[in-house]
Formats: sequence, structure tokens, C-alpha cells
Amino acid sequence: MIIKEILNRRSIRKYKAEAVPEEYITEIIKAAQFAPSAMNNHAIEFIVIRNQETKNNIYEIVGQEHVKEAPVLIIPATDSTKTNCPVEDLSVATQNMFLQATALGLGTAWKSIRPELREEIKKLLGIPGRFIVINIIPAGYPEEKPGPHTDKDFDGSKIHREKW
Amino acid sequence: MIIKEILNRRSIRKYKAEAVPEEYITEIIKAAQFAPSAMNNHAIEFIVIRNQETKNNIYEIVGQEHVKEAPVLIIPATDSTKTNCPVEDLSVATQNMFLQATALGLGTAWKSIRPELREEIKKLLGIPGRFIVINIIPAGYPEEKPGPHTDKDFDGSKIHREKW
Repeated sequence: MIIKEILNRRSIRKYKAEAVPEEYITEIIKAAQFAPSAMNNHAIEFIVIRNQETKNNIYEIVGQEHVKEAPVLIIPATDSTKTNCPVEDLSVATQNMFLQATALGLGTAWKSIRPELREEIKKLLGIPGRFIVINIIPAGYPEEKPGPHTDKDFDGSKIHREKW
Repeated sequence: MIIKEILNRRSIRKYKAEAVPEEYITEIIKAAQFAPSAMNNHAIEFIVIRNQETKNNIYEIVGQEHVKEAPVLIIPATDSTKTNCPVEDLSVATQNMFLQATALGLGTAWKSIRPELREEIKKLLGIPGRFIVINIIPAGYPEEKPGPHTDKDFDGSKIHREKW
């Protein structure tokens, strides 16, 4: 039995205008904080953005309509002085956020911040220089409903035994 | 309500000798394949290792007792010609594997393969040059039982509103 949130998590880029309750954001960030990190460093912090002007400014930098249309954006940032694996840490935390959002009936997607745009995003949001950002997590009630994953999405030929 | 597997997932490095059923390995890999990846690239493949000699050889390269003691090791590898975000892809897939293993009553941990050791591991296992490995996932029935995450592990001061 695959965990139902793993089955139901799909990338969602169209959202209803309806606001996302603050306690849902807290649960999503809690799930992120319960993810493993290199040497258990607990170095990730989070910016929660609801202000439309800020969302527009972020959109101007990274593009993609759903960034300005989402009711809320969450940007995780990790302290590069406290972890040797910032990308791994941010990625596993993001996956927990996706799954917890799914449990709450919210849609999300991974919006990458290309390496050359990261400093601009940090400057816009006042993120200290030692922190690293890799992505933006827009969240909202889904306006599209792709079905859950099924065995159609499973490819057993990618499993090798003992050796490649 | 945080997803129960997110609460219950802890890094486990002591395992019972009991074998892990093959269908559990399939479920864990299925969960990995249902994780998002950059541009939906589906480029991750998996090596499942139960042979003790192979586990010993891996241990000789990367160290840490639990690598040779675990009943099974899973090593995900992604095709660098098919993704721009190999570390992110492997990390989110790993997190799904951790959570699915937790759902099945198994313990796991993230064993990093340091960058300078990756080619040696690839050579040992016959992994093609274009593939990237970052970690090993040992799995087994837990011999230690750390409690679930609680609000003690949550730090609300790491949430910033609108700006840092």
C-alpha cells in the first residue's frame, strides 16, 4: 500500500483564489522541519509570502504565471555555514511540504530558481548572504485535478539486482 | 494533522537480521518513482543489493557499520543526460522511499556517498558513467525505536512573513 499522499501528489499550477489558512502553512512548515537533514543541522528557515506586490516582483525575476497567481508562496532557505548538503536538505524538506500540502487538500509545484537568479531573489526578500535558495513552493486549492499515480507510472525495468 | 509517516520517520542505523520482503522493496521503489522530478524526466534507476560480499565491498569504500549490517541496500542513480537537477531529483525520491519504508515498518537512513567516492561505487556496481549517485539507503526492521517527531522538533521562529 503506497502512502496515499504519495499517490495523490501531483504538480499543480492552477489555483483557486481562496486563501490558504495560516494553520495549514504552519503544518506544511512543520512537516518540512521533520524531514532529515545532513548531520541533523536544522538550518532551514522559511519565508511565507501572501503580498501580491511581492509575488509580482518574484514573478518578474523567475517567470511562470502560477508564481503570481498562487495565494501563497513558501521559500525555504538554508544556512550554508551549517550544512554540507544544502540542495539535498532543501529537497527532502520540500518533498515533505508537497506531501503535507496534499494531505491538506492543497496543490503545489516545484518552481526552480535558476542559479543565476538566486542572488536577486535573496536581495528582494532580504535573505542573508550565507543562505541558499533553490526553489519556490506556490500553494493553493487546486483548480485542476490530475488523477493519482497508478502502476502505469511504475517501471520495474529500472530495478537492477545486485549489479547494474 | 501531520502525515503519520512524516512523524514516525527517524534515521535508523540498527536493524534486525530478518530479511526484507521483495514486495516491500518494490513498494519503496514505486514510491520513489511517484516523486516529482525536473521536467518529469523519470531518469532514476535503482540497484537493490542483498549480497553480503557486495555490502562489505561498499562498506570498505564508504564506511559506517550499518551499511554492511543492513539486510538490503538500495542505491538510486540518475541519468545526468536527462536531468538538470540530479541532486534534487535523487533527494525527493529518497524522501518518498524513507516515508514508504516507514509505512512498511522498516527503518532507513541517508548514507551519503562523498563526491570523491562516487566513481568508485559506480565502478564496483557497474553503473554507467553518465549516471550520478549521491547516497545509499540501507533498510531493515528497526532494532532501535526512537519516538516520533513532536512539536518539540518544531521551531516557529524560523518562519518569516513576507520578508526575512
